[in-house]
Amino acid sequence: MSKNLSALPSIKSKVAEMVTPTAEERAAVDRIAREVCTRAEAAAERHGIRVRAEIEGSVAKDTWIASDRDLDVFIIFPEGTPIQMVKGKGLEIAKEAAGKGWKLGYAEHPYVEGNIKGFRVDIVPSIEMRKGDRPTTSVDRTPLHTDFVKSKADSTLRSEIRILKQFMKGIGVYGAELRVGGFSGYLCELLVLGYGSFEGVLKAVSRWKEGEVVEVAGGAAQKSNMKGTLLYVPDPVDLRRNAAAAVTANAYASFIAASRAFLGSPDEKFFFPPRPKISSADLVKMLNEKESLIMGISFKCPAVPSDILWGELNKSLSRMAKAIEGEGFQVLDSAAWSDEAEIAYFLFELDRATLPNWRSHTGPMVYLAAESDNFLSKYLKNEDVVSGPYIRGSRWCVDLRRRFTSIEEIIRKDLPRMGISKHVADSLSRGFDLILGESLGTAASSNKELLAYLYDFVRKKPAWLQ
Amino acid sequence: MSKNLSALPSIKSKVAEMVTPTAEERAAVDRIAREVCTRAEAAAERHGIRVRAEIEGSVAKDTWIASDRDLDVFIIFPEGTPIQMVKGKGLEIAKEAAGKGWKLGYAEHPYVEGNIKGFRVDIVPSIEMRKGDRPTTSVDRTPLHTDFVKSKADSTLRSEIRILKQFMKGIGVYGAELRVGGFSGYLCELLVLGYGSFEGVLKAVSRWKEGEVVEVAGGAAQKSNMKGTLLYVPDPVDLRRNAAAAVTANAYASFIAASRAFLGSPDEKFFFPPRPKISSADLVKMLNEKESLIMGISFKCPAVPSDILWGELNKSLSRMAKAIEGEGFQVLDSAAWSDEAEIAYFLFELDRATLPNWRSHTGPMVYLAAESDNFLSKYLKNEDVVSGPYIRGSRWCVDLRRRFTSIEEIIRKDLPRMGISKHVADSLSRGFDLILGESLGTAASSNKELLAYLYDFVRKKPAWLQ
Repeated sequence: MSKNLSALPSIKSKVAEMVTPTAEERAAVDRIAREVCTRAEAAAERHGIRVRAEIEGSVAKDTWIASDRDLDVFIIFPEGTPIQMVKGKGLEIAKEAAGKGWKLGYAEHPYVEGNIKGFRVDIVPSIEMRKGDRPTTSVDRTPLHTDFVKSKADSTLRSEIRILKQFMKGIGVYGAELRVGGFSGYLCELLVLGYGSFEGVLKAVSRWKEGEVVEVAGGAAQKSNMKGTLLYVPDPVDLRRNAAAAVTANAYASFIAASRAFLGSPDEKFFFPPRPKISSADLVKMLNEKESLIMGISFKCPAVPSDILWGELNKSLSRMAKAIEGEGFQVLDSAAWSDEAEIAYFLFELDRATLPNWRSHTGPMVYLAAESDNFLSKYLKNEDVVSGPYIRGSRWCVDLRRRFTSIEEIIRKDLPRMGISKHVADSLSRGFDLILGESLGTAASSNKELLAYLYDFVRKKPAWLQ
Repeated sequence: MSKNLSALPSIKSKVAEMVTPTAEERAAVDRIAREVCTRAEAAAERHGIRVRAEIEGSVAKDTWIASDRDLDVFIIFPEGTPIQMVKGKGLEIAKEAAGKGWKLGYAEHPYVEGNIKGFRVDIVPSIEMRKGDRPTTSVDRTPLHTDFVKSKADSTLRSEIRILKQFMKGIGVYGAELRVGGFSGYLCELLVLGYGSFEGVLKAVSRWKEGEVVEVAGGAAQKSNMKGTLLYVPDPVDLRRNAAAAVTANAYASFIAASRAFLGSPDEKFFFPPRPKISSADLVKMLNEKESLIMGISFKCPAVPSDILWGELNKSLSRMAKAIEGEGFQVLDSAAWSDEAEIAYFLFELDRATLPNWRSHTGPMVYLAAESDNFLSKYLKNEDVVSGPYIRGSRWCVDLRRRFTSIEEIIRKDLPRMGISKHVADSLSRGFDLILGESLGTAASSNKELLAYLYDFVRKKPAWLQ
């Protein structure tokens, strides 16, 4: 496997150089963060509340990578504070700390997203917890994660963490948010702490199987949590929690495959994948050449926080795929895309655009007398019957006329009945565009990100395999 | 269920009248049969061999129905005669007994098919056996079957047997030959002996489930024979044998469904189903309206005995269906048809005529390192790859260009590689016609039987359900 590992040190140092923030960048981030903390504590004082405002996450741990423009500030209420107080007063304080132009974020728990000098600053109210306690809300663990990593990671390990994060970013599996379904920053940190180095992680990962249990940095596995998980990494700060719960099958497999490929032939492209410049005309040509039907449904992106948006998009997508397959099409591929602001797309690749005007319908076993009688009385004089009823093997069957024969008709008439999630359904009910085949290339012409996404959807090969 | 059973007696007497041979018919058959026996015994004497020539089957048992033009004459060698003698001298004697125009028949065992005054006379050499013995060849049991039924069936039961046979004929399940896969004459006789009357049989059958064991007329079931059979009727003459072994799932289910329907509403149409007069133009119209693709492959019928022909046709058909599905089509229905002399047809109903120019190919789990490496080295730089390789779920996949995209191409190029049986393959290699959609209606215009068969193939509804 490791023929060219001699190239590894120079690749790592190049990557490290690119992802380690400069002294100026650090100073800028630090200034912003301290400003927000000060404002938060001042606001709390005005409300007559005693809280601690603290920088958390990768900035506090000094494991952030230069391209990240995210910053976490926590407003920490004392142990035992009622959750309603945190949700009410905590949010007030967060808004005041954010300054102008904030918006509300919401995962399981409300917080404020501020935009300060090009940085996205998440200001999150939480409740103090101690190692081993049960958290009141899931964010309460974050300060403990910060402390844990700060206490374990020296500057060498921090550099290894940055390199791993950039690797995950390059192969598209960095981030626990639903949009990615990949590996959180904290999980990257745990893996490096456990395996000691970037290549230590990759060597272990390249041998991962399904249902891997990784006990790193004092995280002892609890058997009851292991069932049915793809990857189980006990959180050293709260052993009941699987730090890898968000990792999807695709992200897991991609990380394994990419680790193996990288160790076989280390290359910078894993960290910084080349993005081909793709024009609308190129995409039209590609779509034209592929004889399957690629279909897009574009609509206004619902104004909901990112994780809610992607939860709804993913659920709606899989229900639509099921409904379309139920009609008799083969769904060869499907995906959701959104800029999280203006537009969202459902994408489907189907084996065809239209179906024959009937489908075969299988009824009861001939042996079941009552069921057979029902079947026959239902279909013997039914206008939708094209052929039959007839017996095939041991069962009654009948060929029935279809309501719709084109995918276009099905989408236009049946979309509301496909089990679409609430906010997406609301948006779709206000209108959508149905775009078939090469027209997708034209429709995406003004949106570079969408063009790139569609290119990947058609080409399918991961960038690190090119 | 039995609302209108009051109509039953008059229907039965009408049917009995139509199927019971007249005195003249009996006399004619008797004359022919005795003539053949006399000729056989004379021929044996010329060869210096002592045999017994005997009328067997439904004529001997007086259970034949008027429309049947079949007659069995057995040349019975004494117990212990070597099988080679039977196959050699026996066949010689049979040929001499047949007179002009005979041809060789062959099931498991050679015999002679004579054509005498419009009757098909099977002249079959066999070896005497006694009840309970193991037969040397399967035909050796026939004289015991004749004796058994003659000893049990009085004229009332013989009439019931005739009515049941005509019922089975009407619904298309009469005959154990491979073409039908249904109920032999002897099995009909056993059922009537067991259940006492035509309606006794139907009442029992309408309650049959899968794996029915029917011990009639002293046939005690042997457990070792029961496994996995749909219907097990121990032969009272040889308990090791299942007299219902030839019954296919379709024939079994059809008999049950028709029995139930008949008892619910007795009608002559079950015995003499109306055959709509269908023209080539009607069929063209029907084929045109059905948006699936109906395809016929017509070729010269191989000159082999009926059971060999149908064995090969059925086996070839199911292999072709498998191959066609393997290419990506849905086989909605398939059938073989032949006049057993001039032509044979394979018929397929497919969901479409062409496929997209590529198909998805699923590779190994990403976890399997060696298999993944093989997969990648095979497809990374392969000209047949349209998209990918990519990861879906936990597996490597790749979209590959198809060799052929139309069913026409596939049949023309790949038919020889579909596992066609010998004689059929020989015939196909000498040429075939591929006939698609409505052209089938035109191609069948001069053949009434084929027209009727195609009509059924498209319409699918059994005649007794119309």
